[in-house]
Amino acid sequence: MTRRHPPPPASVAPVQPVRTLRILLVRDPHDADPLNVETIRSGLAQAGFTEVQMVDADLRLPDVITAQQPDLVIIASESAARDTIEHVCVSTQHAPRPIVLFTDNDDSARIKAALTAGITAYIVDGLRAERVKTVLDVAYARFELDQQLRAELDATKLKLAERKVVERAKGLLMQARGIGEDEAYKRLRSMAMERGIKLVDAAQRVIDVMA
Amino acid sequence: MTRRHPPPPASVAPVQPVRTLRILLVRDPHDADPLNVETIRSGLAQAGFTEVQMVDADLRLPDVITAQQPDLVIIASESAARDTIEHVCVSTQHAPRPIVLFTDNDDSARIKAALTAGITAYIVDGLRAERVKTVLDVAYARFELDQQLRAELDATKLKLAERKVVERAKGLLMQARGIGEDEAYKRLRSMAMERGIKLVDAAQRVIDVMA
Repeated sequence: MTRRHPPPPASVAPVQPVRTLRILLVRDPHDADPLNVETIRSGLAQAGFTEVQMVDADLRLPDVITAQQPDLVIIASESAARDTIEHVCVSTQHAPRPIVLFTDNDDSARIKAALTAGITAYIVDGLRAERVKTVLDVAYARFELDQQLRAELDATKLKLAERKVVERAKGLLMQARGIGEDEAYKRLRSMAMERGIKLVDAAQRVIDVMA
Repeated sequence: MTRRHPPPPASVAPVQPVRTLRILLVRDPHDADPLNVETIRSGLAQAGFTEVQMVDADLRLPDVITAQQPDLVIIASESAARDTIEHVCVSTQHAPRPIVLFTDNDDSARIKAALTAGITAYIVDGLRAERVKTVLDVAYARFELDQQLRAELDATKLKLAERKVVERAKGLLMQARGIGEDEAYKRLRSMAMERGIKLVDAAQRVIDVMA
């Protein structure tokens, strides 16, 4: 079968622009001498990031994040104030996203505390506009790798927890029915299939009844 | 009982200097227009890092790392050449340490590949001497958090693997001896204690014999 290709258009259509990232730029209201957020904004604009919303790190922040669903959060905080950082990190913890901190504070204890709280990239003295794009690229790549690792850890922990439940149910069945391990496993599996539930849930029901 | 404290010294003794980090500064031999490693060196010297050894990223690198046991590796690579990065990452994989890359290459695919290979910090346009200390502090903190996460993942995977072995051995004992789960577990545990081996190794012996 021959597939017909449409003839090439006479003039090349402009490339469809990729949806630009939605960026939330959070200002630290504690700053006595605030960072120049205009430099960050102009770097973002130069790099093609046009959807930038600016907010203060106040009590409305969780609502703003829920409403705006930013792809990436930037904190501009001269002092890297601990409560501002924690406020932003807690506000995004149910839907993690990269958080880039621009700050003037290069204290190593503060750096460690910020990364531990969940900051993806800690940038001191990085306010030149032409650097912003690269900083975001590095933060994005770092965030994705970190999320992969955390997802793997969560999946492994879940497997371990489920296995404990399944093994306990198998043991109860083996002892009560005088059957072998394979047979006990088969019975659990049939129970799950008949009821349209997960193996671990069938196992939990066995434990609820027999233990 | 009263404990006697020695009297305070008449003059405060100078603080014992912390051992300075051993840094390996790796030059990329592919670079047509090498980064100015002297800027990095002077930043390191300013920040008090005096134990800096400079090497090329050639085939002797694994031996140099084994011999010198650096605490931290810096790669100066204008192009962020893939094989140089992989060479350094592979050379340190049995004893991971932070790897900071200074480069001029801000291509986002290259950034992602470098972080995936194991680069801790990807720094473009970061060659001002006064920034070096902060960059290392951030990389160190990031590395430690990452190692914690990886250690937790490894431990959870090991637990899961060991659990499979122990559960299999328990199942074999339960079926062969007509005993319950608790009794099977007790027998495994006594076997391990009597022989001075780990529970999982006792379980493996049961499987070797009975399966």
